[in-house]
Amino acid sequence: MTHPPASSVQVLAFDIFGTVVDWHGSIVREMAQLHPDVDGAAFALAWRAGYKPAMARVMKGELGWTLIDDLHRIILDGILPQFGLGHLDEEQRRHLNRVWHRLAPWPDSVEGLTRLKRKFTICTLSNGNIGLLTNMAKRAGLPWDCVLSAEVFRAYKPDPATYLGVARVFDLHPGQVMLVAAHHEDLAGARACGLRTAYIERPLEFGAAKPKDVSPAPGNDLHSRDLIQLAAALGV
Amino acid sequence: MTHPPASSVQVLAFDIFGTVVDWHGSIVREMAQLHPDVDGAAFALAWRAGYKPAMARVMKGELGWTLIDDLHRIILDGILPQFGLGHLDEEQRRHLNRVWHRLAPWPDSVEGLTRLKRKFTICTLSNGNIGLLTNMAKRAGLPWDCVLSAEVFRAYKPDPATYLGVARVFDLHPGQVMLVAAHHEDLAGARACGLRTAYIERPLEFGAAKPKDVSPAPGNDLHSRDLIQLAAALGV
Repeated sequence: MTHPPASSVQVLAFDIFGTVVDWHGSIVREMAQLHPDVDGAAFALAWRAGYKPAMARVMKGELGWTLIDDLHRIILDGILPQFGLGHLDEEQRRHLNRVWHRLAPWPDSVEGLTRLKRKFTICTLSNGNIGLLTNMAKRAGLPWDCVLSAEVFRAYKPDPATYLGVARVFDLHPGQVMLVAAHHEDLAGARACGLRTAYIERPLEFGAAKPKDVSPAPGNDLHSRDLIQLAAALGV
Repeated sequence: MTHPPASSVQVLAFDIFGTVVDWHGSIVREMAQLHPDVDGAAFALAWRAGYKPAMARVMKGELGWTLIDDLHRIILDGILPQFGLGHLDEEQRRHLNRVWHRLAPWPDSVEGLTRLKRKFTICTLSNGNIGLLTNMAKRAGLPWDCVLSAEVFRAYKPDPATYLGVARVFDLHPGQVMLVAAHHEDLAGARACGLRTAYIERPLEFGAAKPKDVSPAPGNDLHSRDLIQLAAALGV
């Protein structure tokens, strides 16, 4: 595989949930307000745990193409009774499901992205749907040049169609695109397609009670604590 | 058809070529620099004239799904000999074709969009491809919340899939989306799908030598001189 120098990178594509925004902390805070009797941390983890199996059902063809908003809702309906919330009505469920549109950025995200945007085209590359990502960005002040999503490519990461799709959208070679993510599996998928990769440590992704191993993995071009450190590493 | 009040509009979707950016003037200026012996105004009009027939070939199935960058290139290759430019090499053609990524905004566009963004989600809804629209926005300072395109919906305007696609992306009723465009045909297509519509006068779209009739058409919710006047009409 040809491997152009990192200096030729023009587009930075960002994973979102966990990398740019704090899904766990955001859900815990909303649950503390909406349903204070529920263990918000366990609830957030249970909701998120349903995510990969639900996408796998779509990719295996058991479910037709489904937006993440709708997968989140299917998972939510499944776990509510386990947390004593089986009585929530349609409007309450709909509101709670939209918490994924209201996730808060990590403290460094807006400053880091704003700096990176000066030199690079910055876009999302998330399994989240376009509406979710746009509502989130508007609320959180995330200054994307462009919102790309599994919805555009009709495939979820780590399907190669998503990583190669970013390169094709911008008429670039894969090596001119860098995926930025806090998950090694995602980065490995991108690397297999020829993209450059940057790992971002997010030790608190699953909450303070479940610190994540953020050791460097071989193969990534960059390993940064957060998006401000990534900007510095990329010279902006 | 239900017709909610204009006050319920949440998303403004903008046509781009002619409505937000000045394709004719931008191409004339580039041609004056690159190929000063060519009649730039006639060249711009000839290039643009090939646009609808080329999209029609795709929608009829004569061509597979094709990005506008590639349609622009097919048309360009066709007209170059007529303008004495049949000798241009691959790199020159590729550079010239990307002029559509470098189109300049009308003088009111950035201020108008910046104001409208305070109250509404603002997105593109163009037949231009995502990469083209993103490169254009970055260069011109167009502050989109989200870049939507025929490329997302795999259909060109005025196909209903494009107008209804915007509503579906944001999980809204069609009447909560307003199309903003300088072309009555585009607005009529949106209105037939239940969207609200705002006409923008762009009398110089085809150049000062070919002023456009900008009379109001019945059926549009709003008729504004430019995007600053539209912002005022919408209370921002």
